[in-house]
Amino acid sequence: MNAVGKMLIGLHLGNGYGSQSGAWRMPGVDPKSYTSFDIRVKQAQAAERGKFQFIFLPDGPGAVMTDIETESPVFNLDVMMTLAAVARETQYIGLVATGSTTFNEPFNLARQFKALDIMSHGRAGWNAITSSGEDVAANYGKRIPSSQDRYGRAHEAVQLIQSLWGSWGKDAWIHNQNSGQFAKKDQILPINLQGKYVGSRGPLYIPPSEQGQPIIFHAGGSPNAHQLAGRFANVVIGTAFTIEDARAQRNAFRAAAKSYGRDPDEIKYIAGLMTTIAKDRRTALDRRIQLGGSSLIQKFEYLQKMLGIPLDLSLINEPILELQLENARPSHYPRSSNALKIARQGWSVLDILAHGVIDYHPVIAGPGVEVADHMQAWYEAGAADGFWISPDVNSDGIDAFVDHVVPLLQERGLFHKEYESKTLRGHLGVPDQYGIDPRV
Amino acid sequence: MNAVGKMLIGLHLGNGYGSQSGAWRMPGVDPKSYTSFDIRVKQAQAAERGKFQFIFLPDGPGAVMTDIETESPVFNLDVMMTLAAVARETQYIGLVATGSTTFNEPFNLARQFKALDIMSHGRAGWNAITSSGEDVAANYGKRIPSSQDRYGRAHEAVQLIQSLWGSWGKDAWIHNQNSGQFAKKDQILPINLQGKYVGSRGPLYIPPSEQGQPIIFHAGGSPNAHQLAGRFANVVIGTAFTIEDARAQRNAFRAAAKSYGRDPDEIKYIAGLMTTIAKDRRTALDRRIQLGGSSLIQKFEYLQKMLGIPLDLSLINEPILELQLENARPSHYPRSSNALKIARQGWSVLDILAHGVIDYHPVIAGPGVEVADHMQAWYEAGAADGFWISPDVNSDGIDAFVDHVVPLLQERGLFHKEYESKTLRGHLGVPDQYGIDPRV
Repeated sequence: MNAVGKMLIGLHLGNGYGSQSGAWRMPGVDPKSYTSFDIRVKQAQAAERGKFQFIFLPDGPGAVMTDIETESPVFNLDVMMTLAAVARETQYIGLVATGSTTFNEPFNLARQFKALDIMSHGRAGWNAITSSGEDVAANYGKRIPSSQDRYGRAHEAVQLIQSLWGSWGKDAWIHNQNSGQFAKKDQILPINLQGKYVGSRGPLYIPPSEQGQPIIFHAGGSPNAHQLAGRFANVVIGTAFTIEDARAQRNAFRAAAKSYGRDPDEIKYIAGLMTTIAKDRRTALDRRIQLGGSSLIQKFEYLQKMLGIPLDLSLINEPILELQLENARPSHYPRSSNALKIARQGWSVLDILAHGVIDYHPVIAGPGVEVADHMQAWYEAGAADGFWISPDVNSDGIDAFVDHVVPLLQERGLFHKEYESKTLRGHLGVPDQYGIDPRV
Repeated sequence: MNAVGKMLIGLHLGNGYGSQSGAWRMPGVDPKSYTSFDIRVKQAQAAERGKFQFIFLPDGPGAVMTDIETESPVFNLDVMMTLAAVARETQYIGLVATGSTTFNEPFNLARQFKALDIMSHGRAGWNAITSSGEDVAANYGKRIPSSQDRYGRAHEAVQLIQSLWGSWGKDAWIHNQNSGQFAKKDQILPINLQGKYVGSRGPLYIPPSEQGQPIIFHAGGSPNAHQLAGRFANVVIGTAFTIEDARAQRNAFRAAAKSYGRDPDEIKYIAGLMTTIAKDRRTALDRRIQLGGSSLIQKFEYLQKMLGIPLDLSLINEPILELQLENARPSHYPRSSNALKIARQGWSVLDILAHGVIDYHPVIAGPGVEVADHMQAWYEAGAADGFWISPDVNSDGIDAFVDHVVPLLQERGLFHKEYESKTLRGHLGVPDQYGIDPRV
């Protein structure tokens, strides 16, 4: 059983508040959510109620506190500890976290993700990325290696980790109390890999999980990312602002998979989507204005560049004049065309900004049906196999999605109504993996 | 409030079965305990019922599977994931795990132990050790560095990690939704440490816990261990087979603390103790014979060396003749004197071995009162501030200790009857730590 033929949905589980920087101040939000594992668990449970296939925890241990005076950090205290908490208090939802190959020892990554896989009874996934920020490197007292070295190490690390995960055969663990045989030693083999960057003798001392071993995610869009994901990943988290761009990205990853001799369908392209769900567009925009505070105004300059026209800050509550819009030339910034489209609908400059035209992913601010329509359009256009949802505020934004978007998608036959499986591989239609993949 | 004036007790939480290699085969033991987080949680809860101050998870990611055909691995799948599970399902007990400074990036250790400290509301401790086994190094594709380099790196790593833990001031985290102030930026400072071995800019993005930050444990007995523990540790887990040896070790650590300008009482020496608790000695020995199986016979050779006399394997069920014992010369092996004492009591050779005279720590096999007597004698002789208990089989051995030893110690006024605190520092009488320790 798998989820082929339906869209996949993941939840962004980050700092506990939500994806908008003002989320921590919103009514009904516990201001201590950043350190609350109870709240993370509750949010994951809300996503499980909505039959999300996975939660996905980004990470980047760098300068996540640029505006700590007024804004919360963007990531979890520690992604693995968060997933451990969630694993014990959910039953179905997949558990995926970022773990950088640049500043982690592969053996440690292998051990921790496999332990999570055991703990969650086969629901773990690893987002294998490289670290490119000098702020991250500084926390390790190092500099960022060259792109070639980062990806060279990443390829070795993923191969090594998958080998460690597979170092016990499927039936190696006997634990027969009568015969006294604990395991079949000849099915637990060292891996003896030594590359240019990393090495390990192994074996890892952890038997297979209910899905065999975790699956590989990747997040990124460069040619290097295509190669790494094309070789190893089953899921890619992408950043695309238009259907055309998403489709091109998806095709690039599928082509990369093919170039490694894989079936392109083995790699699922997941598009990011940020949501503000309310009874109507106006209410949603007002919510985002409350959320954004002065940070919306800070984006005013950038909006002018995106549209290619000068704007007057004193007229921020007025629509842009028709005359001006005729001169607008969407810049090369990938979000420009959407910004112009919104502007042409006659919204005020502040409302244009409140639409989230400058955010990390496409934003839908409005009733649930608009979110469902967006997802359907992208999915049916071959632009995405699914979506990674970042609610504006988690405390009510996850429930809003579950109550007002999920039922529409289910009615339209686009999203499953029940979990078909108890493992992440089952949710994604990826075969269980035991031993070492002969293709690697 | 603290625990000064009473002994401290910790539980060895390892592979899920217990400290004896045959534990996984015993009646009543779930043979899948190795991969069961449910069982670890239940065992920790049993220790909490007994008011243990902490659980302690050793780790050493090397060749933990030497006899995997018949024996379980000795350690947890992953100590941090185990403690995360336990943290969510206990309320008082301290949570301590080994994390090697040799093959971990300090920033990663800092983050994960501090996240555990937040998750457990101030109950985390870190056993800061170095890795000396080539089998461990091989899993990282490396060789073991020289002792000087290992301890050099360890000193830098602990200092760096404590600095990262203290990089938020006590009151830095405001999270005031009305004023919009999330944190006091001037109380969250980079650490900018760059040593010979490791470095980090910081700050860590995690505010203080209920105890400020985790405390440092150390396990080891070399002069290097004295220095590292004397400088940083609040608790040392020791290995000593006699009161005299334990007292000497304890004094050495206290002297080392003093040499770093600390009050010697800031460092607690915890002696290891392995238990087989049964209604009488005979029943306990029979249990250990069942547990030991052929591994007891394998120790026969070593027993001859310890006693300095030849023994006849065919007479293993007979006591050693008086005439022979007169010729016995306890070897330099530290466990020899106890082995000779047991031999002189007239036990058969197999029973001598079943007493655990060759095990990793002193063994008491018998009724609870004998365990309590041992602990009282060591404690009152100044040989230990407390004990790290390794039951033979966890499934019933923890409860046996809680039901048959703890009440005796409490009646004798040697052990607390209730938790005085909800933090590990509180349990150990160690002051909360905020910011960076000015003495370091």
